[in-house]
Amino acid sequence: MTGADALVATLADNGVGACFANPGTSEMHLVTALDRETRIKSVLCLFEGVATGAADGYARIAGKPAMTLLHLGAGYLNGGANIHNAKRAYTPMINVIGDHAVPHRKYDAPLNSDIMGLAGPNSIWIKSADSVKVTGKLASEAYAASFGPEPGPVSLILPADSAWEEGGEKGGEAKVPPLRQTPAAKIEAAKGAIARAKSPLILINGTALTEEGLQQAARLKGAGLRVMTDTFYWKIRRGAGHFAPDRMQYFAEGAMADLEGTDLMLVAGTSLPAAFFAYPGKPSLLVPEGCETLSLGGHDTDSAATLKMLADALDANAPADPVSLRKPDMPTGELNAAAVGKSVARHMPENAIVSDDGVSNSLPVFAGTQGAEPHDWMMLTGGAIGQGLPLALGAAVAAPDRKVIALTGDGAGMYTNQALWSMVREGCDVTVIVFVNHTYRILNIELHRTGAGNPGPTAKDMLAIGEPDIDWVSLAESVGVPSTAATTAEEFDAAFEEAMKTPGPRLIAALVPG
Amino acid sequence: MTGADALVATLADNGVGACFANPGTSEMHLVTALDRETRIKSVLCLFEGVATGAADGYARIAGKPAMTLLHLGAGYLNGGANIHNAKRAYTPMINVIGDHAVPHRKYDAPLNSDIMGLAGPNSIWIKSADSVKVTGKLASEAYAASFGPEPGPVSLILPADSAWEEGGEKGGEAKVPPLRQTPAAKIEAAKGAIARAKSPLILINGTALTEEGLQQAARLKGAGLRVMTDTFYWKIRRGAGHFAPDRMQYFAEGAMADLEGTDLMLVAGTSLPAAFFAYPGKPSLLVPEGCETLSLGGHDTDSAATLKMLADALDANAPADPVSLRKPDMPTGELNAAAVGKSVARHMPENAIVSDDGVSNSLPVFAGTQGAEPHDWMMLTGGAIGQGLPLALGAAVAAPDRKVIALTGDGAGMYTNQALWSMVREGCDVTVIVFVNHTYRILNIELHRTGAGNPGPTAKDMLAIGEPDIDWVSLAESVGVPSTAATTAEEFDAAFEEAMKTPGPRLIAALVPG
Repeated sequence: MTGADALVATLADNGVGACFANPGTSEMHLVTALDRETRIKSVLCLFEGVATGAADGYARIAGKPAMTLLHLGAGYLNGGANIHNAKRAYTPMINVIGDHAVPHRKYDAPLNSDIMGLAGPNSIWIKSADSVKVTGKLASEAYAASFGPEPGPVSLILPADSAWEEGGEKGGEAKVPPLRQTPAAKIEAAKGAIARAKSPLILINGTALTEEGLQQAARLKGAGLRVMTDTFYWKIRRGAGHFAPDRMQYFAEGAMADLEGTDLMLVAGTSLPAAFFAYPGKPSLLVPEGCETLSLGGHDTDSAATLKMLADALDANAPADPVSLRKPDMPTGELNAAAVGKSVARHMPENAIVSDDGVSNSLPVFAGTQGAEPHDWMMLTGGAIGQGLPLALGAAVAAPDRKVIALTGDGAGMYTNQALWSMVREGCDVTVIVFVNHTYRILNIELHRTGAGNPGPTAKDMLAIGEPDIDWVSLAESVGVPSTAATTAEEFDAAFEEAMKTPGPRLIAALVPG
Repeated sequence: MTGADALVATLADNGVGACFANPGTSEMHLVTALDRETRIKSVLCLFEGVATGAADGYARIAGKPAMTLLHLGAGYLNGGANIHNAKRAYTPMINVIGDHAVPHRKYDAPLNSDIMGLAGPNSIWIKSADSVKVTGKLASEAYAASFGPEPGPVSLILPADSAWEEGGEKGGEAKVPPLRQTPAAKIEAAKGAIARAKSPLILINGTALTEEGLQQAARLKGAGLRVMTDTFYWKIRRGAGHFAPDRMQYFAEGAMADLEGTDLMLVAGTSLPAAFFAYPGKPSLLVPEGCETLSLGGHDTDSAATLKMLADALDANAPADPVSLRKPDMPTGELNAAAVGKSVARHMPENAIVSDDGVSNSLPVFAGTQGAEPHDWMMLTGGAIGQGLPLALGAAVAAPDRKVIALTGDGAGMYTNQALWSMVREGCDVTVIVFVNHTYRILNIELHRTGAGNPGPTAKDMLAIGEPDIDWVSLAESVGVPSTAATTAEEFDAAFEEAMKTPGPRLIAALVPG
């Protein structure tokens, strides 16, 4: 078999079920190998940032990596921001990067670049299959490596000659490393610290945010610990019937006020919290002065198991109550994020998936849906906006029978608007809500918080994305997404209700205050 | 002054006149510094690949670098593919990458990444201004470094605290390195080799493609040398009144057939030609067997001067004739790239600028406009499609009084469709021609050339961008670009004639065969 066939078959053997692709000439043999491999669904993306964001969304829902097909270093760069986001989500991803044939590299043809160098920093594993013999073996290694134990994106470079030559061999079963277990001694230390603390808190992420993890977290809450998540995380199971942990506030001053009096901070499945950005004269580390800290493991650890060990050690047998189902009344009047949150809570079906890249409009929707039907909520993890639509695409491919709701700012949505095209092509059941305020609203807030001075006309212009206003209905319909604009809460509610009843891609432009 | 003010003022002092920006929180002090610096025009881009492509287009027309404003490593990655293209165009560019404040880095906040590592490979110079004191000095260094002498993109990382702190100092005049001169001994060697050769050829790029360079190239042609350019290059001055060199063919087999019999290949302003991609059993280096080769300098060399030295040495005083003005008749019938070429040749005004990212439809337009009014033609240099619209945006900002024509494939145009928004915002006089064939047509050609086998349904799907078809008129009008679709040569001719008479952005969707 060719090297391309060996690579693709090895990944399929190990369970890879989707390839988000933007191929070029150097990947043609991979394209025909994928044609022969029916176990992998190939999804064409018109921009690599869509492919990598979709692979992330797929993995968050499927619990296993998708592969991407990227065209040399330039293709990797186009996909790079959402690879960064995936790295920060700790989701596994296998980026297959086509390269020039090995003997062709030395001629430094126009598309040549130092792929190893530029892809290295955001790859937790990177190798180049410079001989056809190793294509299968490295595919198997890449699959295993993407699971970490701190999971993340891996890069497998495939030179064109390694793809087209005969002599490839399948790589066999990947040795997927298990997540680490928190040592018993650490649990004991945590137990002792809790006994001494007046106001203990446990900060959680990773597998602590799964259904099982949250059941354990509810036990800890019942035993007197405050349970808080990171501000942003890969996915949480939430809604009616689920324990709702607190969420770390985004702005450092708010977070610090909220944490006041906390004298013990345990962390499980994450690291000590830091402010998203630095500001003049404000702290970076979001830990109160004098607060004791203790790590029970990071993203390499099975934190659901950690929480269970700790809850058992504490004899925590009175779990905090889960959230009850609460469907709000129909919102009326001005359309804003809170009104959107009400409509989403009213109409979102059970087991929906939310992809959240709504930036400054996200929090009211998140807060408003705490008592909605049980669902999964995925977030932007790495701060590189433009992840929401691709993530929704990938989630919809992973779970074609579940309703996916994508929240995106208008600024964020423009980065990867090409995702809409793939949603139509694949018939994805995604409802996109674009918060249209014609501005990078978060930056107007941040401009003042950073003390950068009073903005003059140029500065204001740099943060405003009106002039021209973007007509999202026209944009979405240009690639065949049925779309509507809503200017009042009533209009939005009707449009969203209709979208929840209708399968297939759909977009609602929610015209909200700037 | 703050570090941000020192950086911006230093670049303005040295002549930087434009900033293509996609800022975030860590760049807020740069945004307000730009607000205060009236010598730099700030242009907001909704995606960083637009910003970097525009900076490239600006530099190719203005002859000096623009700056970009990018948001940490993720912003750099989004701009990375067009930085790769700029590196391959050998145009100067100053990428200012905002970073976390230095003391904040160690907390590894979500947007943190190894900027030095990921930006290094495509930066010809990269430094981080880790103290406010060095902001101006490094800005001056960065400006100079972008000129090479092999020009290209440089990266200046600016941590937020270096931007916001007081104590910045302007960096003074940049010591711009001059292009190198070809040593006289090499000219003598070339003269001797030409005398011995039966069929000598000189391959040119760089400054050899300027007005002055082409006048010298015409002298060489008159003296019996075949004059040929690289397949792709940064810019050429062409049209009526200009000497038209041959162009290296794209496909290796065509190029080799064309070069048959060539027994001497001189190169000036470039390197020995290599095939764009490798193909099984086909050569990589496009030099006939036994052909003598001699380099008179690469992109670091003033090749216009090189050609003059060589022409003087050869006493070449009978230059080849320049092209005469030839305006074709109105095309009729089927709309295809040849018909588009005729319309462009008929109506393009004097001194227009063409940005060519038309992929498989480019060559007929290029060939058809050889006798058009004199103009500048800019090409995709690094093979990463999605450069054409940004390049046109930057050229239009550099030369607001010149008509800019952007040729783009539909696949290529989707990568950076956000450029249309900036064109409207800036009132750019750009006419965009999108070749709409609903396919990555070049890949259908390449699939067969690489011998990847007969494509099955999945493979065909990976190369077809119909289903859904993209409605470019609706897409362009969603951001306010007046647009029209043309399905016949007559319709296109009328639409293009109208566009040439009307200032401002405009888009024509040319529905051509797939």
